[in-house]
Amino acid sequence: MPEGLVIRPLELKDHEEWSRLWTAYLEFYETSVSEQVYEISFNRLLSTDAGEYNCLIAELEGRPVGIAHYLYHRFMWSVEDTCYLMDLFADPQVRGKGIGRALIESVFQIAKQHGVPTTYWTTQENNYQGRILYDKVAKRTPFIVYEKDE
Amino acid sequence: MPEGLVIRPLELKDHEEWSRLWTAYLEFYETSVSEQVYEISFNRLLSTDAGEYNCLIAELEGRPVGIAHYLYHRFMWSVEDTCYLMDLFADPQVRGKGIGRALIESVFQIAKQHGVPTTYWTTQENNYQGRILYDKVAKRTPFIVYEKDE
Amino acid sequence: MPEGLVIRPLELKDHEEWSRLWTAYLEFYETSVSEQVYEISFNRLLSTDAGEYNCLIAELEGRPVGIAHYLYHRFMWSVEDTCYLMDLFADPQVRGKGIGRALIESVFQIAKQHGVPTTYWTTQENNYQGRILYDKVAKRTPFIVYEKDE
Amino acid sequence: MPEGLVIRPLELKDHEEWSRLWTAYLEFYETSVSEQVYEISFNRLLSTDAGEYNCLIAELEGRPVGIAHYLYHRFMWSVEDTCYLMDLFADPQVRGKGIGRALIESVFQIAKQHGVPTTYWTTQENNYQGRILYDKVAKRTPFIVYEKDE
Repeated sequence: MPEGLVIRPLELKDHEEWSRLWTAYLEFYETSVSEQVYEISFNRLLSTDAGEYNCLIAELEGRPVGIAHYLYHRFMWSVEDTCYLMDLFADPQVRGKGIGRALIESVFQIAKQHGVPTTYWTTQENNYQGRILYDKVAKRTPFIVYEKDE
Repeated sequence: MPEGLVIRPLELKDHEEWSRLWTAYLEFYETSVSEQVYEISFNRLLSTDAGEYNCLIAELEGRPVGIAHYLYHRFMWSVEDTCYLMDLFADPQVRGKGIGRALIESVFQIAKQHGVPTTYWTTQENNYQGRILYDKVAKRTPFIVYEKDE
Repeated sequence: MPEGLVIRPLELKDHEEWSRLWTAYLEFYETSVSEQVYEISFNRLLSTDAGEYNCLIAELEGRPVGIAHYLYHRFMWSVEDTCYLMDLFADPQVRGKGIGRALIESVFQIAKQHGVPTTYWTTQENNYQGRILYDKVAKRTPFIVYEKDE
Repeated sequence: MPEGLVIRPLELKDHEEWSRLWTAYLEFYETSVSEQVYEISFNRLLSTDAGEYNCLIAELEGRPVGIAHYLYHRFMWSVEDTCYLMDLFADPQVRGKGIGRALIESVFQIAKQHGVPTTYWTTQENNYQGRILYDKVAKRTPFIVYEKDE
């Protein structure tokens, strides 16, 4: 873990910084969500209900600089659930300090303690900066994603 | 919908045929699961609990010939959930009759009625037969899948 | 080699049938070339000059049903040249008879007799029908193609 | 063009530095070639014969720091030839100075002056550092490469 870095669960006080980080993440994917989605999502992340996303905050010298949103869900091929890491973001200003890696490792360890042996995520094929990291900490599968919305 | 084809939810009486179809599906992916996973999975599929996979059976002239396993889960970027189609299989003997397509369309329509606008799935990049169909009914996204299990 | 199938070099008398087959091939790639390119290309294919493409014709029961255009060129990493199979086409009406495969194998064998140990080609990632064949007779490399025209 | 950078054709005096740079390039691809290939390749690069590779040297403040090997060959779909950029390398110590980009642009411009409108190259799908550059200066095509050597 990089010096001065703390990974901890989201708290109510993080609302503003979490919004800032998530917005920057969504901008990376050239998308945005409504104000309503921000509010509902924040409440869901704070909830401890099964079926809700969880959130980790990466704090560097007391300042939130990264987020990870992850979800446990059933996995047909095993008794255990699997863990889906949906959103991962580190402030561009603090890139190269290992924050993304620390967030991934933390999600993976927390999931394991939760009895969930596998964490997976998706990324765009041309997210080169992300993939340089992902190739180091995980395995690329041969799977691609199809989506049907009409 | 092809003539003589009925898509319906899994029932208790389907245990044997469902096992046969799922086994054939897993063999396609050169994998297998334990007897325990068969038992737990079948019960989970019959359960109506949120967070459990659902199963559709494709029946051709009264005989089960295809299965689809799908799951609703939260989606960070919207108020609505999304639908993950994990397993899809049609008997090789009855390929080319539109069974896979009918299963996908049924999952998508059921999800929509459930308030879930998007259904997604993954497939191996070199699953050409599958992708010929998927390209017709859905959109390939630029996303690839990473997995961490150690 | 499928019964009734002959693979032989292009001849002057093939002009019309070669034009028909190449046009069908180009249509598959949603492209076309000018009348001038047809004329120049046909002459180049008949030429035995080094640096020119060669052409094989697949003839089924006396009728041309497939073409292959291939070129030897230097390869930096070896003393020997390499062989680039640029265009490969079999009449859709006679698909499934092994014509594409026979053309590929013939190009590869001719190249080997010519002292050229390796034959390569490119294909669109979603040319599923082609790739089903290519996966059987060759190796997919991890290479993708970039092009600069401005 | 970065200050202090000169792109020029390979000369006889470059033998040693060219060997050093090409070796480093081949090591990147985890390969090597025989002493014989070094000798034959160097002579071919110096040759002005059609059908031989050409070589550009990138010189930073008088010191060779990059190489590009490129070849003109026939292209079936046009009257004009195409240009294949096979090897491209910049010294890791001088990365980020635009040497790779300057080499690509120079090959492309020289080819154009030669009447060759298109330059293409291949790269491994996971050559992220390279692709960050290639996406800026060229277009990724949907083509992948197959190779047959037995």
